[in-house]
Amino acid sequence: MILTVTLNTALDITYRVRSLRPHATHRVSEVTERPGGKGVNVARVLAALGHPVTVTGFAGGGTGRAVRDALGAVPGVVDALVPTGGTTRRTVAVVDERSGDTTQLNEPGPTIAPAEWAAFLAAFEDLLPAAAAVALCGSLPPGVPVGAYAGLIRTARAAGVPVLLDTSGEPLRRGLAARPDLIKPNAEELAELTGSHEPTRATQDARRRGAHAVVASLGAQGLLAVTPEGHWRATPPARVHGNPTGAGDSVAAGLLSGLVEQLPWPARLTRATALAAATVGAPVAGEFDRAVYEELLARVAVSGEVSAA
Amino acid sequence: MILTVTLNTALDITYRVRSLRPHATHRVSEVTERPGGKGVNVARVLAALGHPVTVTGFAGGGTGRAVRDALGAVPGVVDALVPTGGTTRRTVAVVDERSGDTTQLNEPGPTIAPAEWAAFLAAFEDLLPAAAAVALCGSLPPGVPVGAYAGLIRTARAAGVPVLLDTSGEPLRRGLAARPDLIKPNAEELAELTGSHEPTRATQDARRRGAHAVVASLGAQGLLAVTPEGHWRATPPARVHGNPTGAGDSVAAGLLSGLVEQLPWPARLTRATALAAATVGAPVAGEFDRAVYEELLARVAVSGEVSAA
Repeated sequence: MILTVTLNTALDITYRVRSLRPHATHRVSEVTERPGGKGVNVARVLAALGHPVTVTGFAGGGTGRAVRDALGAVPGVVDALVPTGGTTRRTVAVVDERSGDTTQLNEPGPTIAPAEWAAFLAAFEDLLPAAAAVALCGSLPPGVPVGAYAGLIRTARAAGVPVLLDTSGEPLRRGLAARPDLIKPNAEELAELTGSHEPTRATQDARRRGAHAVVASLGAQGLLAVTPEGHWRATPPARVHGNPTGAGDSVAAGLLSGLVEQLPWPARLTRATALAAATVGAPVAGEFDRAVYEELLARVAVSGEVSAA
Repeated sequence: MILTVTLNTALDITYRVRSLRPHATHRVSEVTERPGGKGVNVARVLAALGHPVTVTGFAGGGTGRAVRDALGAVPGVVDALVPTGGTTRRTVAVVDERSGDTTQLNEPGPTIAPAEWAAFLAAFEDLLPAAAAVALCGSLPPGVPVGAYAGLIRTARAAGVPVLLDTSGEPLRRGLAARPDLIKPNAEELAELTGSHEPTRATQDARRRGAHAVVASLGAQGLLAVTPEGHWRATPPARVHGNPTGAGDSVAAGLLSGLVEQLPWPARLTRATALAAATVGAPVAGEFDRAVYEELLARVAVSGEVSAA
């Protein structure tokens, strides 16, 4: 199985309203709710691709129960979340039906107690032997040490399990020192990490900071990969219009599934690019449109070269 | 005990954000959550005044569980909510810290199945013999017949239990035909019911439509009461600044507690007026400030006259 870690899980709620006006009272015409947090989203895409997935991280309170109930209903996903005494955060996306714009309200999430963090570390070690790969995803909740990901990467690498790290800011910076197998920053995260807004230079710099491979996601321009095996660029055939929410998580799922299947890099990048575009184009935020995905697989362009041995 | 009925209970969530801007992403700095719906709010104020209260209506799903968990923790309140297969609605109040303005998002709430409505009617009849008074509060959820309140009023009156009806629109219009003991419309509800924007005329008209007593709440101008025993006007000593959320529910609780204690009308109106003002002035929406309440009790002005016997 593939193990995804989401330390700051969420209950993602979407409200549709006719038109959002500050200071007014709105009747919500439609409510949708689903488990969220980056690693949970990655797990859902992996399961849809046919990979058995185990989800760990923290869940607590009534919203944590809602997350676990919904996760338990997804075929192929095993819930190995660790209880926390706090309450899992909600995120509320308010979609304005007139403009199509989304306004986002994100709760801060619970503080993790030291004993809960210790319980998570024990659970993580227990899960590792069965894992073909690990994804460490998203922000760190209060109470979790800022160097948490570096520790988890060392533990996974000691167990011989490859690690994808998908986070930003200081947790990313600290995590790199532990040499993750793969990071997949977007342009903004890459610029924050390296200080450079030039994608090729920034991607190379990120690799020098400790990641074995770096796949930069450049939105509609596709992916830029710098790896020990070579460097490539993957480009979708046309700009897809829609909601980019979850596209980054689809990239992570595409890369991770390709790693576990031992696909060559161009095939991994093709899959990740097609999945991201099919996620942007899907009617529900964060889902991917399977027909669009399969159609795009044949049309993603990959160029690059293999490193000299 | 006093029985309060809330057919459309809610989990009331308040988010504080720095400044609400449509289309932006906001970090919520503070989350508060409490059980809501008018009858639940009335029950909380009654319990704070020392009256044992039983809460009925519907609750379901994860939010229904959160409502029941929180209600169970309020001293003096007994939870007699009836389960529904749907999910209790959330209301989200987004408070903009810069302007102090509140933006409200209200979920529609679950549809009540015919068997659930029958179960509620049976529960209501079982609760009535122990009730000193009943409050029927708020809107009707989908699935509940629009004449529901009229039926509940007839059942309560047949059992000799006085009824306060606090609703609006068609449920109020239909309810009046069953002759509730008391209604407490605000100026807007009164105008919608009678077509008149002149408070004295509209209040008298509302009484002719079937209510034994009408107490109109006129915001900062206080209360206007037309009853079989006489007519009165109660005025707070000064305009209180703050959040009017829940002031109407405090009026209902003040009137209901005064009825059960068999206070004369001027004392009931004094209590209701002081409670409403102490609710507007409280730092938390819907709570009342006890010190302000007790201080105002001596300063509410009541004028009017007793009817000729």
